[in-house]
Amino acid sequence: MNKENNKKIPVGILGATGMVGQKFIKLLENHPWFEIVALGASSRSAGKMYGEVVNWQVDGAIPQIIAKMKVQSCEPKYPCQIVFSGLDSSVAGEIENAFANAGHLVISNSKNHRMGTSIPLLIPEVNADHIELIKTQSFSNGGAIVTNPNCSVVGLATALKPLDDIFSVKAVDVVTLQALSGAGYPGVPSMDILNNVIPYIHDEEDKVETEPQKILGCFNDGKVDYHPMKVSAQCTRVPVIDGHLECVTLTLGQKTSKDKILDAWKEFSGEPQKLKLPSAPNNPIVYFEDPRYPQPRRHSNLERGMAVSTGRLREVGDGRWKFIVLSHNTIRGAAGGAILNAEILIKKGYLRDE
Amino acid sequence: MNKENNKKIPVGILGATGMVGQKFIKLLENHPWFEIVALGASSRSAGKMYGEVVNWQVDGAIPQIIAKMKVQSCEPKYPCQIVFSGLDSSVAGEIENAFANAGHLVISNSKNHRMGTSIPLLIPEVNADHIELIKTQSFSNGGAIVTNPNCSVVGLATALKPLDDIFSVKAVDVVTLQALSGAGYPGVPSMDILNNVIPYIHDEEDKVETEPQKILGCFNDGKVDYHPMKVSAQCTRVPVIDGHLECVTLTLGQKTSKDKILDAWKEFSGEPQKLKLPSAPNNPIVYFEDPRYPQPRRHSNLERGMAVSTGRLREVGDGRWKFIVLSHNTIRGAAGGAILNAEILIKKGYLRDE
Amino acid sequence: MNKENNKKIPVGILGATGMVGQKFIKLLENHPWFEIVALGASSRSAGKMYGEVVNWQVDGAIPQIIAKMKVQSCEPKYPCQIVFSGLDSSVAGEIENAFANAGHLVISNSKNHRMGTSIPLLIPEVNADHIELIKTQSFSNGGAIVTNPNCSVVGLATALKPLDDIFSVKAVDVVTLQALSGAGYPGVPSMDILNNVIPYIHDEEDKVETEPQKILGCFNDGKVDYHPMKVSAQCTRVPVIDGHLECVTLTLGQKTSKDKILDAWKEFSGEPQKLKLPSAPNNPIVYFEDPRYPQPRRHSNLERGMAVSTGRLREVGDGRWKFIVLSHNTIRGAAGGAILNAEILIKKGYLRDE
Amino acid sequence: MNKENNKKIPVGILGATGMVGQKFIKLLENHPWFEIVALGASSRSAGKMYGEVVNWQVDGAIPQIIAKMKVQSCEPKYPCQIVFSGLDSSVAGEIENAFANAGHLVISNSKNHRMGTSIPLLIPEVNADHIELIKTQSFSNGGAIVTNPNCSVVGLATALKPLDDIFSVKAVDVVTLQALSGAGYPGVPSMDILNNVIPYIHDEEDKVETEPQKILGCFNDGKVDYHPMKVSAQCTRVPVIDGHLECVTLTLGQKTSKDKILDAWKEFSGEPQKLKLPSAPNNPIVYFEDPRYPQPRRHSNLERGMAVSTGRLREVGDGRWKFIVLSHNTIRGAAGGAILNAEILIKKGYLRDE
Repeated sequence: MNKENNKKIPVGILGATGMVGQKFIKLLENHPWFEIVALGASSRSAGKMYGEVVNWQVDGAIPQIIAKMKVQSCEPKYPCQIVFSGLDSSVAGEIENAFANAGHLVISNSKNHRMGTSIPLLIPEVNADHIELIKTQSFSNGGAIVTNPNCSVVGLATALKPLDDIFSVKAVDVVTLQALSGAGYPGVPSMDILNNVIPYIHDEEDKVETEPQKILGCFNDGKVDYHPMKVSAQCTRVPVIDGHLECVTLTLGQKTSKDKILDAWKEFSGEPQKLKLPSAPNNPIVYFEDPRYPQPRRHSNLERGMAVSTGRLREVGDGRWKFIVLSHNTIRGAAGGAILNAEILIKKGYLRDE
Repeated sequence: MNKENNKKIPVGILGATGMVGQKFIKLLENHPWFEIVALGASSRSAGKMYGEVVNWQVDGAIPQIIAKMKVQSCEPKYPCQIVFSGLDSSVAGEIENAFANAGHLVISNSKNHRMGTSIPLLIPEVNADHIELIKTQSFSNGGAIVTNPNCSVVGLATALKPLDDIFSVKAVDVVTLQALSGAGYPGVPSMDILNNVIPYIHDEEDKVETEPQKILGCFNDGKVDYHPMKVSAQCTRVPVIDGHLECVTLTLGQKTSKDKILDAWKEFSGEPQKLKLPSAPNNPIVYFEDPRYPQPRRHSNLERGMAVSTGRLREVGDGRWKFIVLSHNTIRGAAGGAILNAEILIKKGYLRDE
Repeated sequence: MNKENNKKIPVGILGATGMVGQKFIKLLENHPWFEIVALGASSRSAGKMYGEVVNWQVDGAIPQIIAKMKVQSCEPKYPCQIVFSGLDSSVAGEIENAFANAGHLVISNSKNHRMGTSIPLLIPEVNADHIELIKTQSFSNGGAIVTNPNCSVVGLATALKPLDDIFSVKAVDVVTLQALSGAGYPGVPSMDILNNVIPYIHDEEDKVETEPQKILGCFNDGKVDYHPMKVSAQCTRVPVIDGHLECVTLTLGQKTSKDKILDAWKEFSGEPQKLKLPSAPNNPIVYFEDPRYPQPRRHSNLERGMAVSTGRLREVGDGRWKFIVLSHNTIRGAAGGAILNAEILIKKGYLRDE
Repeated sequence: MNKENNKKIPVGILGATGMVGQKFIKLLENHPWFEIVALGASSRSAGKMYGEVVNWQVDGAIPQIIAKMKVQSCEPKYPCQIVFSGLDSSVAGEIENAFANAGHLVISNSKNHRMGTSIPLLIPEVNADHIELIKTQSFSNGGAIVTNPNCSVVGLATALKPLDDIFSVKAVDVVTLQALSGAGYPGVPSMDILNNVIPYIHDEEDKVETEPQKILGCFNDGKVDYHPMKVSAQCTRVPVIDGHLECVTLTLGQKTSKDKILDAWKEFSGEPQKLKLPSAPNNPIVYFEDPRYPQPRRHSNLERGMAVSTGRLREVGDGRWKFIVLSHNTIRGAAGGAILNAEILIKKGYLRDE
């Protein structure tokens, strides 16, 4: 593997000028394994220097070397096997297919392919075994597509996983309080959200109500059997820059205690931790005893934005529990999650020797 | 009755310098029936002019005539039968009792007496019949206490009432997104809430989980039989000045349809509407078809802050429904609600002829 | 004049679906003199009901009668002499000319014609005598154009006027802290301004540095001689919905005292006050003694948004003074100011008898 | 010197539980030279574990080792020569004197001693030569006090320094837009500042108008001759967490050009850069060509919060210039600036060999 002889693995970024693309660039800036060699954007930007066409929104400056790279169109002939996609869903489906058919390993953050039968909808701590779905994919030239979940699903599914393993999750009600960065740029007008809440995010509830069943589903005989739990969601937008906070009501199949649930979260660890992947948090789930925590502005960045935090666990009767969960929507819930997906794929041997 | 010979009814305000007290003053500024004749505050302020001791927070200036009134201590000898109380709960219990025992009709916004067996916890559109509880009170000199609910309960209980009447409410899960004005002044530090959400409000969930059962309870033979529905709540604070927004999941006892629920809300009307009370909204419940509405900044002031608005109604299976409800926490949920309570008491003859 | 026989004066609104257009509609809702009879917007909206095409942003609901009116294109054949224009500057120049040439009295809030030699740039309290410039206009059919200043100039020029009259203003340095509503809708992305300040507003400083000299200029022999004072400006955008706050440093030609300046502001009154125009504030300038005031959220609405407030006056040596000034940018600084302009024109006889 | 044999230099923190104290702790967490050995707070907290008494406000968790340290009272017998003080001004004067008289080198962020004749008011890039004032101090046992300026002065004075050296600064007008963290905790109530600006900060203008003259003053014959420039200021509070933005109007003694001013800023470098101090920014002043920059949320953290950024430079006639300057108020403007002060003192030999 390249990284063992100290040569970095070349990667490309599709949708490099968008918000998710920018976040990919920032998170890959000092990545120990990866080196960006291709920046893909619309034909309008192609041929120009990245620094000239991007409306940079991410904290800190554009990495110098990237600012001077020439942007390419999204034609599938990049000099790298791995391609991260932060493409808008209006174009992601087709372009990602084209790259996969050209032999690329597409690590997508877009929604288009998530629910495809042969597509892993991957949170490496939760369902690393789903990676084997790749073997059922039929792209040409050995290409493949792997996706990460919607930004409001990642934290929820991660927090549910250890509880489901031990106590069996029957039903989930969730109210999300979502950050502005989830809407991209220009995104939500300030006139709509300052001193306000918008109790609606287009299409979001549908994703929150369907993706967890696939993620927590059982990989069996080359396919995923969806988890039978019922999920219902109400999604709201709040005046917060980063960090999706979610208020969860949970029905468990078994009686248990607060301590046992806390233990389940505390002891939870997955393949990224075992494999010591560079982007893996030490503790995938961190519980706060202080009832005022976790809070989006103060705790989204926990473990460089890759940890999920929980709090305010309490029983409300009849095997039902309430808690809150927070995750960084543009790191763990988008670019950071996708990079972790790439890391585990490499460790599991999905990168061709070249 | 005084108001019929055009003489206004004298009223006093306990806790006049606090946030709720200020709101009482503002809302009573041009009230057709009431005239403020006594302003009660701590002994520290007593004897000074109101304008000198208050840290005025309410929009618009202090009414001139009030600014020049002398503040009194909270001794129960005010020259008026009706006394509105916006006292802090640390002192409200005792002082309100003292005023009631001195023959005053105490219209309280404090939490202290709300759950008392003989105390009406009153939303006039919802449970006007509970007013008769007053007859079971045993204060000296003909005094009485009437309370209004916690600011996050008013909107919820109002929205539930017509649904319970027709379809029978079995269980309620609610997540609140509460405004800053609910925490008084100085209240929430800006360092805690700007660009943030605080997923905890001290003691609030307990109130939301217990008051609705009393409000929707059945008045029967001189007492209130609590409603058997189960309510569970998660309360959060969001960076919004006014307006509590709540995300509700409801279990109904009967199958029904979206249209029938909307009809129930639309047709809902109570005694304040029938009696044409001055503070009564024309429509106690307003449903928004636009999925982005209602929003705290844009819709809390509906019908001078006295209407409750709902939106985003949808079925989520098994007789369960989701919707959102918004109400103005310092008007309908506090001072305005208390004034409406006073108005209905007068119309129902609880004011002594003098 | 129509209003004397109790028939309202018909008016039209150009750019009726934009932010300024919406504000015109709201402010005219219960206007004692005016009645909206025409709503003009782009050809895309023409022929549809207003309520269907507008993205309503103003507090409170769309007036029922307006919601059901049919939108027209901006062809100059409206059944009314007075037309308010809230058109975008990209189209305002041509359309306003066309309406003026068709005999309309165009009351414009757009920037296009403001600096035209024969165009009154009008704040009725400040330079009502400039109205006579209309006589030098050469539109066909007796039409005319009158403009109001940029939203950040109105408060400044009003506060300067009485000081200039008495003490002679030599130079002005101003830093503006401008509200989001000044940028229209969708306007400033929330990702840019939440927990932030943007120290730049395109083209704004140029307006602030040039309009005051015309407004405070001397009308003389059919033209305005510009005031010789030097104005320099830095304009910033802050996370505030309504209300432009400005920090002014002023050089006066004469020595004076704080009390004399306060007196000048206090005693200031203009033709709108003398004529008792419906939109005129009782006190055009209100000074706050409390050093924390005025504040955008708390004081922009003073006198229904039509008063200008000042505060924090202090001398900083050498005939130089510092103070702050606040005005409501979409009322006094836009639609409300334009309506006051129309009112004074009517009182001065610029409406044809019909 | 201790640091050369790899043993860290022990330091104490006075006011360790306050906002500035917390920031000291965070910034010293991985400092290459310093190790915290004493945490001083009020007697109320003394004897308890730091983690139990602090209301931690700084991003990220309390360093583990610090959370378990015992808090001491502020008695001057700490086992370290260097003591950082983030004490409140109500107690700082006396306690800092006591520590200095006990032989400590007090690096203070408080205002009390700043203007003392023998006290360096130090920005190491600007006036490192003022350190020699220490020799004129008369504390017992070889103790000394060094202060850093008010948080809104640091950025301003730094930006002025190279311009003064080359073009001679005659007068400065500044309007500040200051962040909430400057007011400590609980600080500004959210009800006062959300969707608002407060145009007043108690005592702040006086500091901004007097400290720069000392900082830019000439060290001469054992004392500082104040710079004769006139500074006038208006200070406002805006809803921003971190980063003071200032709008400056400058009168220079010499004609110059925009390019020459930009060159002066670009080439500016001081002793911290020459000495390669650990907390020194590579570039003390960074100019942004983009007219929308610098912005508090996006650029305060430049060079770990230690760089000052400028932007929007333009001439406004008569040798007068406008520009904006931004600095991180709790890092460069407080704890970070104080740590840099300690570093330069050590390099210049003010630490006793022990």
